Amino acid sequence: MSEQRKKTTIVLFSGDYDKAMAAYIIANGAAAYDHDVTIFHTFWGLNALRKDEAVPTKKGFLEKMFAFMMPRGADKMGLSKMNFAGMGPKMIKQVIKKHNAMPLPDLIEMAKEQGVKLVACQMTIDLLGLKQEEIMDGVDFAGVAAYLAEAEEGNVNLFI
Amino acid sequence: MSEQRKKTTIVLFSGDYDKAMAAYIIANGAAAYDHDVTIFHTFWGLNALRKDEAVPTKKGFLEKMFAFMMPRGADKMGLSKMNFAGMGPKMIKQVIKKHNAMPLPDLIEMAKEQGVKLVACQMTIDLLGLKQEEIMDGVDFAGVAAYLAEAEEGNVNLFI
Amino acid sequence: MSEQRKKTTIVLFSGDYDKAMAAYIIANGAAAYDHDVTIFHTFWGLNALRKDEAVPTKKGFLEKMFAFMMPRGADKMGLSKMNFAGMGPKMIKQVIKKHNAMPLPDLIEMAKEQGVKLVACQMTIDLLGLKQEEIMDGVDFAGVAAYLAEAEEGNVNLFI
Repeated sequence: MSEQRKKTTIVLFSGDYDKAMAAYIIANGAAAYDHDVTIFHTFWGLNALRKDEAVPTKKGFLEKMFAFMMPRGADKMGLSKMNFAGMGPKMIKQVIKKHNAMPLPDLIEMAKEQGVKLVACQMTIDLLGLKQEEIMDGVDFAGVAAYLAEAEEGNVNLFI
Repeated sequence: MSEQRKKTTIVLFSGDYDKAMAAYIIANGAAAYDHDVTIFHTFWGLNALRKDEAVPTKKGFLEKMFAFMMPRGADKMGLSKMNFAGMGPKMIKQVIKKHNAMPLPDLIEMAKEQGVKLVACQMTIDLLGLKQEEIMDGVDFAGVAAYLAEAEEGNVNLFI
Repeated sequence: MSEQRKKTTIVLFSGDYDKAMAAYIIANGAAAYDHDVTIFHTFWGLNALRKDEAVPTKKGFLEKMFAFMMPRGADKMGLSKMNFAGMGPKMIKQVIKKHNAMPLPDLIEMAKEQGVKLVACQMTIDLLGLKQEEIMDGVDFAGVAAYLAEAEEGNVNLFI
């Protein structure tokens, strides 16, 4: 009798603070509209899900290099534009505070509370040498097949 | 009796000249195919809608900084690749002219004439410290809820 | 009687190795799931389809400049993040080999074998001064109208 719930899927490829904000704002909006929402984090988008503390892991040289160069968690990500060696993100965070908007870590927290499904792409986790224990709790691990199974039923599918 | 019109929505997040061109070329194509088309301009994509003349406004320091650093209008945007401190955009504009293609400001004008709905994201306008009077005429102001209401009925939904 | 095949379309605008990888991984996954899949290469995404050898062509100055500055083929493309003057791509290719994943040229080959339709945008080919003989075999040439005709029937439409 009841209509099927609408579905939104987002591939978050980007590791930029501003793009991840856009992804999570849309995801939170869609969840508020009763969509089933999934965000698939792949490549640099995985950094949004990294724990901000150091996690002891056994890694080879390349994996250590990637881990060292990539930001540890949402709060440390740079901007896609006007990053200016980190000044841009500071400015954005100041205006976010000033306008009572939500910074990225809070948007992620809100998404979890609203039941947005957060998925980390296992293949790129392996490629970039990340370990599952470096990823925050409450995240699923899956691949492109799982993504497609959801996206092919999606009303709104975005690649960000 | 008549079939419902198809619908295309584009989130224009990027402030790059070439990406905005792609967005407007797709939008104009979809409008020519009788789609209902909406472009939601958010973050740096708002710059495509800025008036090119200076508009006197009262702003705080951060807002002045952003306003100063961001391009004023479509014609002043840079390229996502090979920008070379502004040489890339000049080259692109030259080849556009040579091939009788349309530069970005003309594509935007054409979109308006074809009835493409241009929307500026009110939340990011506030964040970046822009004022509504700095945005060109004929643009609506709305938020993520309005976007989702259209996108969930969309046949083609893109994030650019 | 039989259900219609699902359809996936991807606009590949980006000329980044990592973004093109993501596009082709999704495309190959969708083809494996029996979707009709089309990748429309436009702007810098055309570089993924360039032959890697030099092809003698007659070009004007601007066209020569673009041709010279753009990578010739998938294997020579840079990364969207951490490119570090070419060190990033080398690192990525090393971890791809280490994890028995597929480098981009192999992903493109696989897509062809799976019947993914590869299309090059004729308008941007002209703009960037490329010639059809510089593009690899088995690629169609078309415009935004052909893209929209497919995308409006698409289950998954992405802009990458």
